[in-house]
Amino acid sequence: MTQQGVLIVLSGPSGTGKGTICKQLLRSYPNLHYSVSATTRAPREGEIDGVNYWFVSKDDFMMMVESDELLEWAEVYGNFYGTPRRYVQQQLDSGKDVVLEIDIQGAMQIKSKFPQGVFIYIIPPSLDELANRIYRRGTDSPDSIRQRLSCASSELAYACQYHYVVVNDSVEAAVKKIEAILTAEKCKVDRNSDLIDTVCQCGTTE
Amino acid sequence: MTQQGVLIVLSGPSGTGKGTICKQLLRSYPNLHYSVSATTRAPREGEIDGVNYWFVSKDDFMMMVESDELLEWAEVYGNFYGTPRRYVQQQLDSGKDVVLEIDIQGAMQIKSKFPQGVFIYIIPPSLDELANRIYRRGTDSPDSIRQRLSCASSELAYACQYHYVVVNDSVEAAVKKIEAILTAEKCKVDRNSDLIDTVCQCGTTE
Repeated sequence: MTQQGVLIVLSGPSGTGKGTICKQLLRSYPNLHYSVSATTRAPREGEIDGVNYWFVSKDDFMMMVESDELLEWAEVYGNFYGTPRRYVQQQLDSGKDVVLEIDIQGAMQIKSKFPQGVFIYIIPPSLDELANRIYRRGTDSPDSIRQRLSCASSELAYACQYHYVVVNDSVEAAVKKIEAILTAEKCKVDRNSDLIDTVCQCGTTE
Repeated sequence: MTQQGVLIVLSGPSGTGKGTICKQLLRSYPNLHYSVSATTRAPREGEIDGVNYWFVSKDDFMMMVESDELLEWAEVYGNFYGTPRRYVQQQLDSGKDVVLEIDIQGAMQIKSKFPQGVFIYIIPPSLDELANRIYRRGTDSPDSIRQRLSCASSELAYACQYHYVVVNDSVEAAVKKIEAILTAEKCKVDRNSDLIDTVCQCGTTE
């Protein structure tokens, strides 16, 4: 009896370090797999189909959209990106956990199609700290920093659409909390009806 | 800003080892406190009021019942036992977590009065294993074992009334799972509205 894997969806304002958390999570938790997206953009040198992306034609992508084969999708600079439902489902059915790092719009699409997913919102310890991080990164102009912070502030209002909120005061602490969330979710009664039935039925000792 | 503590309610069929798990949990998790019950029975030698029990008169107990000051109560062999709401609430308000090990009837009373509690059902790996454990304990006659197993089988049907189910295949593993549940619960969005508000509001960097 293999317990279904859990789909974890990570979001958070830009600069909260969710990418770093996601990488560290994949490194420290071998049963966790990153969801491979489908895209219509051309492969770059060294990119492998099925590893970095599933590379598909625009026609094929549109067919996936129409037949509801994508848990979410979006157009970015003329290219389409999406999360194939079948690939995620195959991983979960084989007992593997899947993680997806995605923006709020994508996460909300997935939530409506796959409510049994676990939706985690990563937040900075404070907006001041977020400003410091973006500033230290040194890639943004003062105007861009101001715009990012204004975005972050309005994005934080979406936190209540998620199940969990994890403060990224340190990557290690945040990763440990997400691991705990994963462990706890696997103990949820709703995810263990098969186990409960099995335990109830095997009492043949007389 | 102190986050409210979490009330953990542990139940499970007799013989599943929930008492051992509870003790180990209290030992390894210093922020966790055991809920002290009120009782009308006379103190035994060495028992201290407010440590082992709150010793109260039957009149006082009945007044607590009438004024809804007990999260649950029951009569056992002519004595009354109950969980004072005020004591639990004081602990939670000060940021401490509280654990209660209690039977299904008590847990269901608490759930109706304190739904924000976390209800965990401890189950044996199988009814066969439960039979072995009760047998090895050596305190029960074959008839009594049979009766306990029949009880356990019907009690397992209540698992779906709980939030989480934890298999006690080893005390260490079960304790780790409950610690993970506690960590995860503290990350729940519902329990962090103050934190989210604070992070949103302190973005004064310009």
